[in-house]
Amino acid sequence: MPERDLQYLAELAAQLRVDSVRAAAEAGSGHPTSSMSAADLMAVLFACYLRYDFDDPDNPANDHLIFSKGHASPLLYSLYKAAGAITDEELLSFRRRGSRMEGHPTPRLPWVDVATGSLGQGLPVGVGVAMAGRLERVPYRVWVLCGDSELAEGSIWEAAEHAGCEGLANLTAIVDVNRLGQRGPTRHGWDTGAYARRFGAFGWHTIEIDGHDPGQIDFALGDACNTRRRPTVILAKTRKGEGAHEVENREGAHGKPLKDPDKAVKELGGLRNVRVAVHEPAVKAAPFRFESDGLELPAYAVGERVATRTAYGQALAALGAARGDVVALDGEVADSTRTEAFAKEFPERFFEMYIAEQQLVAAAVGLQVRGWKPYAATFAAFLTRAYDFIRMAGVSRASIRLVGSHAGVAIGEDGPSQMGLEDLAMLRTVYGSTVLYPCDANQAAALVAEMVGLEGVSYLRTTRGDTPVIYQPGERFPVGGSRVLRHTPGDRATIVAAGVTVHEALAAADDLRESGIAVGVIDLYSVKPVDAAALTEAATTTGNLITVEDHRLEGGLGDAVMDAVSELGPRVVKLAVTGLPGSATPREQLADAGIDRHAIAGAVKSLL
Amino acid sequence: MPERDLQYLAELAAQLRVDSVRAAAEAGSGHPTSSMSAADLMAVLFACYLRYDFDDPDNPANDHLIFSKGHASPLLYSLYKAAGAITDEELLSFRRRGSRMEGHPTPRLPWVDVATGSLGQGLPVGVGVAMAGRLERVPYRVWVLCGDSELAEGSIWEAAEHAGCEGLANLTAIVDVNRLGQRGPTRHGWDTGAYARRFGAFGWHTIEIDGHDPGQIDFALGDACNTRRRPTVILAKTRKGEGAHEVENREGAHGKPLKDPDKAVKELGGLRNVRVAVHEPAVKAAPFRFESDGLELPAYAVGERVATRTAYGQALAALGAARGDVVALDGEVADSTRTEAFAKEFPERFFEMYIAEQQLVAAAVGLQVRGWKPYAATFAAFLTRAYDFIRMAGVSRASIRLVGSHAGVAIGEDGPSQMGLEDLAMLRTVYGSTVLYPCDANQAAALVAEMVGLEGVSYLRTTRGDTPVIYQPGERFPVGGSRVLRHTPGDRATIVAAGVTVHEALAAADDLRESGIAVGVIDLYSVKPVDAAALTEAATTTGNLITVEDHRLEGGLGDAVMDAVSELGPRVVKLAVTGLPGSATPREQLADAGIDRHAIAGAVKSLL
Repeated sequence: MPERDLQYLAELAAQLRVDSVRAAAEAGSGHPTSSMSAADLMAVLFACYLRYDFDDPDNPANDHLIFSKGHASPLLYSLYKAAGAITDEELLSFRRRGSRMEGHPTPRLPWVDVATGSLGQGLPVGVGVAMAGRLERVPYRVWVLCGDSELAEGSIWEAAEHAGCEGLANLTAIVDVNRLGQRGPTRHGWDTGAYARRFGAFGWHTIEIDGHDPGQIDFALGDACNTRRRPTVILAKTRKGEGAHEVENREGAHGKPLKDPDKAVKELGGLRNVRVAVHEPAVKAAPFRFESDGLELPAYAVGERVATRTAYGQALAALGAARGDVVALDGEVADSTRTEAFAKEFPERFFEMYIAEQQLVAAAVGLQVRGWKPYAATFAAFLTRAYDFIRMAGVSRASIRLVGSHAGVAIGEDGPSQMGLEDLAMLRTVYGSTVLYPCDANQAAALVAEMVGLEGVSYLRTTRGDTPVIYQPGERFPVGGSRVLRHTPGDRATIVAAGVTVHEALAAADDLRESGIAVGVIDLYSVKPVDAAALTEAATTTGNLITVEDHRLEGGLGDAVMDAVSELGPRVVKLAVTGLPGSATPREQLADAGIDRHAIAGAVKSLL
Repeated sequence: MPERDLQYLAELAAQLRVDSVRAAAEAGSGHPTSSMSAADLMAVLFACYLRYDFDDPDNPANDHLIFSKGHASPLLYSLYKAAGAITDEELLSFRRRGSRMEGHPTPRLPWVDVATGSLGQGLPVGVGVAMAGRLERVPYRVWVLCGDSELAEGSIWEAAEHAGCEGLANLTAIVDVNRLGQRGPTRHGWDTGAYARRFGAFGWHTIEIDGHDPGQIDFALGDACNTRRRPTVILAKTRKGEGAHEVENREGAHGKPLKDPDKAVKELGGLRNVRVAVHEPAVKAAPFRFESDGLELPAYAVGERVATRTAYGQALAALGAARGDVVALDGEVADSTRTEAFAKEFPERFFEMYIAEQQLVAAAVGLQVRGWKPYAATFAAFLTRAYDFIRMAGVSRASIRLVGSHAGVAIGEDGPSQMGLEDLAMLRTVYGSTVLYPCDANQAAALVAEMVGLEGVSYLRTTRGDTPVIYQPGERFPVGGSRVLRHTPGDRATIVAAGVTVHEALAAADDLRESGIAVGVIDLYSVKPVDAAALTEAATTTGNLITVEDHRLEGGLGDAVMDAVSELGPRVVKLAVTGLPGSATPREQLADAGIDRHAIAGAVKSLL
């Protein structure tokens, strides 16, 4: 590399450090030292390798850059300034209320694909973005800046496994090995070989460099671009706080502004006005367009017994036929979740993620970055494995569709480890989420189709066992709606149920009618948003609500109902799973949990 | 190995297969083929290496055996039968209601340490049990039977990293590489080298063998026992369904009984009555006993401003001084969670788990298996990473103490990725859990001490910022209690708060009093179990409850309150975080979320 270029890169990196120090100083908080260590790496990337049109962030040929170490946001924003995307004034609004310069990057900024800040997530999401590139046959590259501390996260190794085995050569991880975590030295310090052995074992091309040497960085990034059939990881030995004596390579300097920022700025050569001309994509790519054919959902005859998970699989296959943008992922249980119906029809749009639920959800998030409509399925219980990823998908405003099968004690003999009993609560708390829980196959199919148009995180809860079809094919079930299944003017209470308990509620209502007690039944298939109008109507007319759910007492359907009607003050009795189930048949489980027809009828009688 | 021994081991393994087939056939469900592949491995382990007194499962010198592939429960129970611990009749009660022979093993059986069945958890928990062995200086061994499919879980590599770096030579993973997952071939099939490279890179001693050859198994297990300073993984190539033509090495035979079990039993040589004499521990070890000194909790003066996280750290250090059985773990944020106060005093009882929250929680579960009292801390937001482990700890009836710092929007500028906003909901749904949320330093200290005696999963939520001390040192705060902080007979509403919002509620009450509106204030520090009596009293006297929490609207304090009073029908207004925060100061965040003093006062006024 010519001396002039080296000089320029050094100036650019110095400015990035200066601006990181200034932004954090102005904010009074933030992570300047974690930014300073990676400044040279990013200077070379921006000046020489990144292909990105900052004026057109939606250009499908743009590379993708993900700061997996999201706390290095001052560096990212300083890069945006150097690229001319933001002003110095906006940079200095760092961490202020209303500013786009948030403490950790979020997609409020048009150049940010996903929110980061929970460590170990950027690389798995980057894997998903790289998977999309292969699907689209667009030669963009995915660059992920990782910290060394976050390599302790298991999710990093799920990503390493998937990318390595799939040979995602369009993915490059750049690890800023600055040796210091938040509270002290990392496990491996500057032993980049320790990381190289690990990534190498997972099938990656590994390069170990001095992360402050522009020539070595240039070589490594070029080598990554020229590597075929393997992802590349660049393990760059760096010094945290590089360039400022006060903090350089010192413990206790994480996540705080410098004490003497002016001195550091001076040490770093003062203010500059270096600009970086980021290359625009060398190729043109049209945004992918899919022909959309008329959707023909599967139809089930009323009275037939079909599991809602089966309807999910068949409806997804139908949706896949109608729309080319639908993709499906599964956690090595596609025969159980029934994603296999889609996988058989559209193998190129199906991704087997094996038993790695974090990567399963992260890949879905990555795919939706590129406009795909992912459905990701596993057992409802095992989605708990990916809760942090689901939470962060909410922060990212990512539109992903999750499907959890084998909900509740109704699975029967397999026992509590396999029972999704916390999933409604877990998904309801996620920002901007939608939670759906069908009770029959036609409803399940309709909701699968409904989900494709939803924004944010949406969730479909399915049941293992067969349940009778009670709705006609083709009926509509809008999100936020409910269905009144039993209602007479003489109703003395209303049972609110969803999924498997709808059938128990109907049976209980029949039993009660024979005892001369009229009760209404509502199918609350949309658990979030909830049909407040229908619940209000029921609460007002009968004054007594009994909620029944195959889920824990906390945070599920019963709480959703109470929340909707709390200001009216009806009496609400919640039936839910409170004990610890063992093995038993599905019918025994429902009885033992106190959520079967007999328990419901008993609860109504005690209430009245 | 003499021919006679080989013959015996073959007979024993054949019986284990026969019994696995019979148990699943009798149950009509279960995983016989996944049991059959590992029968030789376990036969040799039980006959030659395991040191276990089945008559005295609490013997502290016993080895520990964890079936990380919990679905191989028929094999485990067949082993128990061969060892004389259970009868054939009990074996054949497999998966029946009330039977201890659950679909996946749980500690209802005295020889089972932890519930498994959610894959990828047994090895990380085994790491915790092995850590305890080093702490106790008791030379038991930890044997973990893993499946090959579950090696895709990131949690396995968190465990590999911790065990490898710590050199836990008392830990042996035995991987049953039967090549077939649930829905088809695994990623690496019989390529045991692929796994060996990965484990080797993480610092493990690796042995690749034919898992049906007793001689090779014997060699490998012996080699594991003789290996110093490194954990060992035995990668055993096996055939799923080994020994029965109908299912051997065939796809589509996962998780179901054989179609023709009688034929398979015949093929396997029919019924036998082979017994295995498991060696008792060679050494004697007394259960560890700790001197308990008087506990002197830190004391904070009323009016002082102290963060509850600081009180947690100082109280934990005090508790550590009083009790030798208290251990602490942290996810590389001990300076933020303040676990460092304990770490500095008791470095030998502090475990730095780095940024690996699944292993953090799993290690706590493993340590409590041996009777230790673990406190595991990280940011509340990042506990979501370990939700499946927390859920399974509930199923295991494990007594672990979790501490989540940096709760809520009150953290300020760092933004939503770092805010624990789902943790109350997440922890409340866990079976048998306790959820505590102190508002001042003396209360936090008292609750830290309270937790040590709790069974099951307990959780303490702490706050980043300083809050004024309002309680006297030494006051007691029993689990399930609450504190009435404001109350007059003229109260027209009661504000229920916890943690940071207690102070907002008190300020709002003062403001309202100046406007001539008397309101009560309850500090609901015990979110689960909740003080139903106090809430009922408030609901009955004022009829209006306003709940306010720095947490999402769903599943938190507000829902806990509503649940407690729902049958009384008071009006309940819930104030909680509903939007997506950005960066802002703590005060701005509370205002923007509508949970500060002004929002509370406004809500009371609108309600009245």
